[in-house]
Amino acid sequence: VTPVAPGAEGGIPLRNASPVVVLVGVQLAENLGAVARVMGNFGLPELRLVAPQADPADPRAVAMATHAATVLTEARRFDALADALADRTHAWGTAALPRQRAARALAPRTLAGTLHHVPGRHALVFGPERTGLTDADLVGLDGVVRIPTAPAVRALNLAQAVAVLAWEWHAAHADGVPTVDAAPAPAPRAAFEAWFARWSEALVAAGWLTDDVLRVRALDGMRAAFRRAGFTEDELSTLHGAVRALARRPT
Amino acid sequence: VTPVAPGAEGGIPLRNASPVVVLVGVQLAENLGAVARVMGNFGLPELRLVAPQADPADPRAVAMATHAATVLTEARRFDALADALADRTHAWGTAALPRQRAARALAPRTLAGTLHHVPGRHALVFGPERTGLTDADLVGLDGVVRIPTAPAVRALNLAQAVAVLAWEWHAAHADGVPTVDAAPAPAPRAAFEAWFARWSEALVAAGWLTDDVLRVRALDGMRAAFRRAGFTEDELSTLHGAVRALARRPT
Repeated sequence: VTPVAPGAEGGIPLRNASPVVVLVGVQLAENLGAVARVMGNFGLPELRLVAPQADPADPRAVAMATHAATVLTEARRFDALADALADRTHAWGTAALPRQRAARALAPRTLAGTLHHVPGRHALVFGPERTGLTDADLVGLDGVVRIPTAPAVRALNLAQAVAVLAWEWHAAHADGVPTVDAAPAPAPRAAFEAWFARWSEALVAAGWLTDDVLRVRALDGMRAAFRRAGFTEDELSTLHGAVRALARRPT
Repeated sequence: VTPVAPGAEGGIPLRNASPVVVLVGVQLAENLGAVARVMGNFGLPELRLVAPQADPADPRAVAMATHAATVLTEARRFDALADALADRTHAWGTAALPRQRAARALAPRTLAGTLHHVPGRHALVFGPERTGLTDADLVGLDGVVRIPTAPAVRALNLAQAVAVLAWEWHAAHADGVPTVDAAPAPAPRAAFEAWFARWSEALVAAGWLTDDVLRVRALDGMRAAFRRAGFTEDELSTLHGAVRALARRPT
C-alpha cells in the first residue's frame, strides 16, 4: 500500500517534499558539517537547529560540509523543539534503544516509506551526541525510529545515523511509481497541540484525575493515542466544537 | 529471492560470514576511526589497509572509533591491493560515478543480497578520499557498487559511504527478523463502539449540534477520525474516564 499525497491530478502521483532534519543540542561542529554533507548527498536540503552548542559557521563544520555548505548557511535556529516542529504534520524521533514513552516504533525502511507516502510535512529529529533525545522530547513525537546495530557497538555517530536514514529516504525515492489514494493531510502539529491543550483544560476543570503524576501520564498516553489518528484541520474544528460543548455543559 | 549457500542441510539456509572492508590509501585518521566505528555498529569486524597514509594508532582515529577500537588494533596492512584480496573469492569496488572498466555494476541493495547469499568470502574495497579507486584497481574486481546521490552533492564522505553499505549488509542480515517493536493491538470494534456511544451521548447531553442531520454527519466524521487511531483497551479505559468526568462536570 503506497498512498499518494493529496492533490494528485491526472493520475500523476505526487510524493511528499523531503523531510526536514532537526538536530537538538548538537555538540560538535564536525558532526554538524558531516550531517549537512550527507543531507546534501541524499537530497535533504532543510536543516533546523534547536539550541545548538555547535556553530554552523564554525570552520570545522564548513570544512566537513564541503559542497553542501548551503545546508549550513540556510539552517534555521530555534529555542525549543516545539517551535522547530510547529509547521510539521509529523515528527519522528531517533533513539539507540527501545523507548517506552514513544507513541510508536518504526524500522528505518518503514520510516522511509512513511516519509514518502503518508501525506504531510515530516521532520526527523535527532538528539545531542552524548545523550540522545529525552523522554520529554519523545512524548510529543509521532513515533521513534531505531536503527538496529550489532550488540557489541550500539552507539552510532550522529552523522552516521543521519546518513542511514537519509540514504533510506533516497533509496525509497527511487522505488517504483506509487499507486492511488486520497488520504487527507493531517493538520500541522501546532494546530493539534492547540486542540489537545483545550481538551486537557476541560478535563482538569471537570475534576478528572486529581493526582498530578497519574494525570500527566494519562495525558501523555492520550496524546500519543490521538496523534496516531492524524486529525485533519476539519476534524480538529469539529473536535474543538465538541470540547466547547462539553466544557460549557448546562448546569 | 533468497538463494542459499551450498551445504545448507535440513532446510536451514546458510549465510556467508561478514565481508572484509578494504581501504586503499586512506588519508585521514578521523575517517579511518569513523569507518571502524560504523563497521562495529553493523557487524563487520575485519578491516584491511592497503598502503595507508593514516595510522590506525593515531589518537584521532582511536577517538572516532570509540567502542570499535579493536577494529583498528586488529586491522591488517598490505602493500598491494592484490595481496589484501588474495584469500577472497569475490571483491567489490565502490565508485561515485559510473565506471567503464568495472566488470559489473550493482546497486547497494543488490550488493547486500550478494554479500549474504552468493557463496564465498567477500571484500568491499574503498579508494582514497580524494581520488577514489583507479581504473587499474577496478579492472581486477568482480564489480563496482555505486551509491546513487542527489546531483547537487555527489561526493560521499568515505566513512558515510562505508556506513551506507555496512547498513545495507546489516539490514539484509536482519531480514525476516522483526525490527519494529510490537505495536499494541487495537481493542475489538465492540469496545471502541461502546466508548464512542458514551462519547456521543455526552455530546448530545451537552447540547452539541442540535440539528440532527449535521450531528449525525459530524459524529460519522469523528468516528472515522478516532478509528484511525486504533485505540487499545487501556486507552479506551482512560478515555471512558475522561468522558465520565466531562459528563458529570460539577454544577
